[in-house]
Amino acid sequence: MKKKIKQALISVSNKSDLKSILKVLKKYKIKIISSGGTYKKIKKLGYNCQEVSKYTNSPEILGGRVKTLNPKIYGGILSIRNNKIHRKEMLNNNIEEIDLVVVNFYPFENLLEKKQKHKNIIENIDIGGPSMVRAAAKNYKDVVVVTNTDQYQKLILELKKNKGSTTLKYREKLSEEAFNVTSYYDSIISNYLNSKTKNIFPKKKTFHANLIENLRYGENPHQKAAIYNTKKELGILQIHGKKLSYNNYNDIFSALNISKTLPSNLGTIIVKHANPCGVSINKSKVSSFKEALACDPISAFGGIVCCNYKINKKIANELNKIFLEVVIGVGFEQDALKVLKKKKNLRIIDSTKLKINNINNISTNFDSLLIQTIDNKIFSKNNFKIVSKKKPSKKTLKNLIFAFNICRSVKSNAIVLAKDSGTVGIGSGQPSRVESCNIAIKKMNKFQKIKNDDEIIAASDAFFPFVDGVEMLVQAGVSAIIQPYGSIRDKEIIKFANQTNTILVFSKTRHFKH
Amino acid sequence: MKKKIKQALISVSNKSDLKSILKVLKKYKIKIISSGGTYKKIKKLGYNCQEVSKYTNSPEILGGRVKTLNPKIYGGILSIRNNKIHRKEMLNNNIEEIDLVVVNFYPFENLLEKKQKHKNIIENIDIGGPSMVRAAAKNYKDVVVVTNTDQYQKLILELKKNKGSTTLKYREKLSEEAFNVTSYYDSIISNYLNSKTKNIFPKKKTFHANLIENLRYGENPHQKAAIYNTKKELGILQIHGKKLSYNNYNDIFSALNISKTLPSNLGTIIVKHANPCGVSINKSKVSSFKEALACDPISAFGGIVCCNYKINKKIANELNKIFLEVVIGVGFEQDALKVLKKKKNLRIIDSTKLKINNINNISTNFDSLLIQTIDNKIFSKNNFKIVSKKKPSKKTLKNLIFAFNICRSVKSNAIVLAKDSGTVGIGSGQPSRVESCNIAIKKMNKFQKIKNDDEIIAASDAFFPFVDGVEMLVQAGVSAIIQPYGSIRDKEIIKFANQTNTILVFSKTRHFKH
Repeated sequence: MKKKIKQALISVSNKSDLKSILKVLKKYKIKIISSGGTYKKIKKLGYNCQEVSKYTNSPEILGGRVKTLNPKIYGGILSIRNNKIHRKEMLNNNIEEIDLVVVNFYPFENLLEKKQKHKNIIENIDIGGPSMVRAAAKNYKDVVVVTNTDQYQKLILELKKNKGSTTLKYREKLSEEAFNVTSYYDSIISNYLNSKTKNIFPKKKTFHANLIENLRYGENPHQKAAIYNTKKELGILQIHGKKLSYNNYNDIFSALNISKTLPSNLGTIIVKHANPCGVSINKSKVSSFKEALACDPISAFGGIVCCNYKINKKIANELNKIFLEVVIGVGFEQDALKVLKKKKNLRIIDSTKLKINNINNISTNFDSLLIQTIDNKIFSKNNFKIVSKKKPSKKTLKNLIFAFNICRSVKSNAIVLAKDSGTVGIGSGQPSRVESCNIAIKKMNKFQKIKNDDEIIAASDAFFPFVDGVEMLVQAGVSAIIQPYGSIRDKEIIKFANQTNTILVFSKTRHFKH
Repeated sequence: MKKKIKQALISVSNKSDLKSILKVLKKYKIKIISSGGTYKKIKKLGYNCQEVSKYTNSPEILGGRVKTLNPKIYGGILSIRNNKIHRKEMLNNNIEEIDLVVVNFYPFENLLEKKQKHKNIIENIDIGGPSMVRAAAKNYKDVVVVTNTDQYQKLILELKKNKGSTTLKYREKLSEEAFNVTSYYDSIISNYLNSKTKNIFPKKKTFHANLIENLRYGENPHQKAAIYNTKKELGILQIHGKKLSYNNYNDIFSALNISKTLPSNLGTIIVKHANPCGVSINKSKVSSFKEALACDPISAFGGIVCCNYKINKKIANELNKIFLEVVIGVGFEQDALKVLKKKKNLRIIDSTKLKINNINNISTNFDSLLIQTIDNKIFSKNNFKIVSKKKPSKKTLKNLIFAFNICRSVKSNAIVLAKDSGTVGIGSGQPSRVESCNIAIKKMNKFQKIKNDDEIIAASDAFFPFVDGVEMLVQAGVSAIIQPYGSIRDKEIIKFANQTNTILVFSKTRHFKH
């Protein structure tokens, strides 16, 4: 099944490293066909090469739009070598076999990143390239297809090992990679066009992503896992510590999602099992961390701390007092890093470069995908309506919105208790809202020393279906509540709030998260 | 920007409905080029048509592998009509413009479903079709591209409305849909080739899915959402009730995932907020439902009941006693349906046709995708090790494995208490394991009448980091515990189990779910 290469077609956007393969092609006396810039480059490097237009005896027309789309090229790529009829037709039509196709495309994502004009983006859609790659990949039994410069070294080794031939296994692997490439390329175009017409949910949808790294395993050791990105970088940089696990990544993203909703340079978030177990904003960084930790110091053990500010030595010393899996900062002072790096395993993450544009949320089950836009609504004043007789002060309202923002990152049903823009109790993941209230209150009573004049407020991710949850909160000392409206018992709840002199704010948005 | 169509190229795998467009093409005196089966069909339908090989003056070779890959075709498609140089080159090379390309591909997924041989699958990869579609879609400023028979009616309307011309907006939309199609087509090929070499995580990965339906909104009303499937059907059939919402689907899938882990024809699952709040297996269907309900009747309110058996009238009557959003059955007796349909809004779902092969789990954050194989390990005896002095009876072991199976579908940290293969307390979604124990115990004490000789067992999705959780369970009356091993305190926990005469089983697998 080894196949000798007699003739190659080369047409590449990325012209680096060409010399390395030209050398080996020459060694095995492989003829080369090429066109345009690639032709010029090959000649410049001092190698023999025939122009496609001479080879096909057909001019390059329409400003390069039609060069290789010719039966002499496609016959050469697609003919089945051990098929007698094919061989006869090739002879009759004076077509030579092309055994190696080296084609790479101009990276389409670069155009999009550069925010080129639509016309220019369309002009850059490669027609000939993908056609040749697909043809060569289909005919991998006879043809080698190389679609990336990082495949050159293996090609050279393969040719040397097999004296100018290649093995079927090698060709088949390259064919698989070639279709990965054409599929990825068209998915970018497809998604670009969909986004242009704001068509979020087309009938046929593709997604594409680049492998960032294989992970040791998934949520559990018997699951295989990897992390991908639609760009080529995650936007977060690990600067120290053990390799990140699937669960680390999941927790890191949870924390960073909350971080986004806080005012920058002020907040600390502690996450465990993808749920926040303490969040605080405070002008004093140390206080912010201490308050977040105080919310549930037991759960924080082995958790993830995410600071939405640059970490200094003082914070680093505080962080080092407890066992943490991950510390995330928006940059680190040098002396802070020195302190943190004392812990060999501690994963230290710099989130400075993270861009907060999110792709749509995808949730998979069986063969189905639930796709939704993300819950990133920015609140305006109109989002809230004060429905109780007692009105909140500016400070209270700020505190309520803080807690409501945290709510949206807590698994439903979610109840967040807060004091001075710091959480003091979080209830999460319960099928009944009362149970979440109960958990939040218990946490508060366990870990906080609440004074009589402390103002405790509560936020709920969805409406209270009954008065019972609200009653439980008020009895626990909560004096202001924020919740989405929508229950048939809203009026009862307003009445209860007024009877107990509780501040009640209704939100227009709900924040379920499952 | 209206463009007159003078010439069309038609090459379709799906030949239905051709007549409808031929009629209108004739009306506007549009010339037609075609080849192979499509050519024959057009002639048979009584319309004029020129064969591609005559048009290009180039024979069809290699068994049809090279037909349309010709400069006369691609020049005709790709030339920019208002470009003088292009027009001149077209004249000089005797190339006519092709203004309409009607091409659809043989549905590649059908080949895969039919489990064809690899060779045949490769042979069916369309090279010419996607090339023409991509070329036409790129040149949408001048060319119309039709890729699906369901676009015929709009084409006819467009031509009639504009007297043989089309608008730019129309052509642009078709171009978008064309790239959706080529991208989808190559993604299927790409994924097929990756699966063949068991390459789960290729460097460049695409996913593809078909829109099943747009949903009213996502998890929350301000989020847009849709449900997709990698096949063309979900495998679940709604036979009654209000339209399914995003959260309904999410809960339904949660329930069906648990259903899969239970022995068939025996189990009932109740789900609320994507977490189970009651599960039971029992030979008596009514008992199975009642036991599942008894686990947490408050949370079951407005929940989802999933029966992994055919629902009869007796069950239907029981189901009707409480308020439910969704009822799922493996089929329904006619008289059961009659009973259930009395509730106008109740969504009734038949899961008979659901196939339990799952795609990999995808979790999205920012621009990243965490991808992992699903947690569907089938337990063997070797998965478990009895580590306590006291050994479980067969019945106890069965009960332990039942609870451990439920655990994997409960959000972490998860604690499941069970009695006679029915859950009696579920603690979920807590950052600390002790808290989950506490919730599960409290639920049991609230809703169950436990007798002295009842055997209560407990399962934990991951190891206990300390003895405290185990101690809490034993004090609450638990006499057997199953948990993954792996804590540095495993020995202490075994010691405690032996001191309290508790059965302790270690599992080799963990079941985190976040």
